[in-house]
Amino acid sequence: MHRRTFLKTATAVTAATAAAATVSSPAVSQNLRKWRMVTTWPKNLPGLGTGAQYFADQVTRCSGGRLTVQLFSSGEIVPAFESIDAVKSGTVEMGHGCPYYWKGKAAAAEFVSNFPFGLTAQEYNAWYHFGGGDKLCDELYADAFGCKFLVCGNTGVQHPGWSRKEVNSLADFQGLKIRMPGLGGEVMKRLGATVVNLPGSEVPTALASGTIDWAEWNNPYGEASMGFWRHAKYYYATGWHEPGTCLELFVNKASWDSLEDDLKAIVEQCAFSTTQVMLSEFQARSGPVLDQFINKHGVIIKKLSDEQIKKLGSTSAEVLTEITGRDAMAKKVFDSMNKFRGEQKVYSDVAEADFLRARSLDYSWPAAS
Amino acid sequence: MHRRTFLKTATAVTAATAAAATVSSPAVSQNLRKWRMVTTWPKNLPGLGTGAQYFADQVTRCSGGRLTVQLFSSGEIVPAFESIDAVKSGTVEMGHGCPYYWKGKAAAAEFVSNFPFGLTAQEYNAWYHFGGGDKLCDELYADAFGCKFLVCGNTGVQHPGWSRKEVNSLADFQGLKIRMPGLGGEVMKRLGATVVNLPGSEVPTALASGTIDWAEWNNPYGEASMGFWRHAKYYYATGWHEPGTCLELFVNKASWDSLEDDLKAIVEQCAFSTTQVMLSEFQARSGPVLDQFINKHGVIIKKLSDEQIKKLGSTSAEVLTEITGRDAMAKKVFDSMNKFRGEQKVYSDVAEADFLRARSLDYSWPAAS
Repeated sequence: MHRRTFLKTATAVTAATAAAATVSSPAVSQNLRKWRMVTTWPKNLPGLGTGAQYFADQVTRCSGGRLTVQLFSSGEIVPAFESIDAVKSGTVEMGHGCPYYWKGKAAAAEFVSNFPFGLTAQEYNAWYHFGGGDKLCDELYADAFGCKFLVCGNTGVQHPGWSRKEVNSLADFQGLKIRMPGLGGEVMKRLGATVVNLPGSEVPTALASGTIDWAEWNNPYGEASMGFWRHAKYYYATGWHEPGTCLELFVNKASWDSLEDDLKAIVEQCAFSTTQVMLSEFQARSGPVLDQFINKHGVIIKKLSDEQIKKLGSTSAEVLTEITGRDAMAKKVFDSMNKFRGEQKVYSDVAEADFLRARSLDYSWPAAS
Repeated sequence: MHRRTFLKTATAVTAATAAAATVSSPAVSQNLRKWRMVTTWPKNLPGLGTGAQYFADQVTRCSGGRLTVQLFSSGEIVPAFESIDAVKSGTVEMGHGCPYYWKGKAAAAEFVSNFPFGLTAQEYNAWYHFGGGDKLCDELYADAFGCKFLVCGNTGVQHPGWSRKEVNSLADFQGLKIRMPGLGGEVMKRLGATVVNLPGSEVPTALASGTIDWAEWNNPYGEASMGFWRHAKYYYATGWHEPGTCLELFVNKASWDSLEDDLKAIVEQCAFSTTQVMLSEFQARSGPVLDQFINKHGVIIKKLSDEQIKKLGSTSAEVLTEITGRDAMAKKVFDSMNKFRGEQKVYSDVAEADFLRARSLDYSWPAAS
C-alpha cells in the first residue's frame, strides 16, 4: 500500500473508531478494487489464456487484494473482437488480446503486433522499453481506443505451418489453398495462393478434407492439441510472417488514471513479467512438442528456399508500403519499428543467430540424463 | 498490502486509538522496511548497474515505500566478491550479482550462470520458469548460501571479443595470449592458448601494449566505453562461451521469510520484469554500438570457423564432464539444463535461427526514415 494512502486510511480509521470504537466497513473497504479483465482467448488456452491468467493472479497477489483482477474468457462478457470496445466504454476495466485484432479501427494497431520480416520477440521488447515503443503505443491507444497500453506477452516465432504437399518453389505457391490470416495471407495472395478465411474451429476438418492445402496456426505448443499432423505431413518452419507477435494489456484510461502510483507500478511490472513468462512457456513447451511431431508422428520439417523467401520479403515490403501510405499513424509506428529493425539486424545476426549456428554443429557432447 | 495483514493492522490501530484516540507511531511504521542491496557492479554500470537500479526502484514503487530498496555499488559496503557472504550473514538483506562469482563456494553456481554451448537467454528463462530451474536454483542457494534465489537479468549473447590479429584456424589458437575468464578461458587453455588473468581496469592497456593478443569482455553495449577498437581490429562474434549469462538476486533467507506474501510477490515480479528490461537494454544499445564499431571505427567482424567451433564444443564437453564428475549438485544442475537444452536445440534452430536466416537475405525493403 502506498504510504500516503495508508496514512489517509489510518486517519479515517482513527476518526471512525474515535466515534464508534469499531472499524466501519466502508473505511476498511474503500481502497479495495475488483476489476474485470476480458480476454480474446478461451479460458486457459495454452500460452495465451494461461499467460493472461498469470498476469491477473500476480496483480492480485502483489496488491494484497487491493486490486483484484478477475479474468473472463472470450464470450463470457463480450465476444473476443469487441473486447477493446468494452474497455473503451468502461463496461470492464481492462483487457488482454493481440493488437492486430483492432486494425479495422486503427491501421497502426496491426504493426503494434509486429510485421512480416520484422522483429524477434527479444528485439520487440527492446524496441518497447528502449526504442520509444512504449510512448508510441501509449499515444496510439489513448487516441484511438481511450486506453492505456502495456506490452503483456509474446508468442515468439510463429511458423507458416502445415502443408499436405511439398511446396518447393515460387511456382508451387500458385493456386495453393491456404488458411493464413493477416498480412501473411495478403502476401501469399499476391504470390498466387488462394487465401481461405476460416474460423479456428473449422481448420482441422478443412485440412483433413483437402478444402485447404495448408493451414497456418502459431507454434508447436499452440498446435499440440490441433492434430494437424494427422492431415498434413510437412511442417514449414521459416517464420517470415510473424517473427514474434506481441500480446497486449489495454486499460480504460479513466480507470488507469484513478490508480494510486503503487498500483500503477504493480500493473506495469506484472505485465512485463508476464511477457517473459508467456514467451518462456511457448519456448519451453514447443521444443518437446516439435520432437513429438518429428519422432512420434513422422512430420517432415521444411525450411522455405532462398528464392521463396526473397519474393516473400519484397512482396511484404510492397504491402507494408501501401498501408503506411494510407495512414499517418501507421506510418509513424512502422517507421519507428523499421528504424530499430535496421539497427538490430546486423547485431542479431552475429549474436543470437551465430551462436545458434555454432551450437548446431556436430561435436561430442554429454548425453542428457 | 495483503488483506489479512491490512485487517490485522487496522485492528491494531483500532486498539491503539480506542486507548489514546490517536495513531501511535509504531503502529503506523511497523511495516515500513528499508533494505540494503549490495551489488557486484559499479554504480550505473551500463546494463548491469542500471538494471540492478531499475529493480530496486521498482520494488520501492510497487510497495508504496513499504519495502524501500537502497542499492550499494561494489565496495561501498563490501567488496564485490564478498556480496553473498554479506547477505548470508544478514549484514545486508539482498544482493545482485552473477552466479559464477560463487563457484569457489559451490561448483554448481557456475552453471546457474549458464555454460559454453548452453542456452540462449530466451531458453534460459524458459528453463527457469518451466523447466524446473526455479526450484533447483532455490535448493542450491538455500543449502550453500542461506539465500532465496531469483533470476534477475541476462546479458544475452556475449562475444569472444577483440583480437589484434586474425585467428583463422585451430593452429592460430596456439600461444595466443588471451584474457578470457571462467570456463571459456579453461577451454582456450586446453587448445593451446596462454590465458592471462587481468582485472578489468588493466585490460585496455594490456591490449594496447600487446601484453595480450585478445580480450574478452561482454557485448558491444558493455564494451562501448572501453575503446578496445583502438587496439584490436578484429571482433570475433561467435558467442560459444557465454550464450546468455544469467544475473541473479539473492535474498537472506530469514529476511525473505519475514516478508508478507504481497511483498514476496512484488520482489518476484520485479525481478522477472528486470530480466526482460535488462536484456532489452543490452539488445537495444548493442545494435547501434556495433554499427559504430564497423562503420565509424573500421572494426572487422569475424565469425569462428566450423573447425574451430567443433573443437571448442568437444573441449567444452570435456571440461563440463570433469566438473560434474567432482560435485553432485553441479551434476544435478547441469543435467537439468542439459536435458532442457536437448529439448530446445532443434526447436530454436527452426524458430529464432531460421527466421534470422530468412530476414538477412537480400530483398527490397523500405528504407529507415
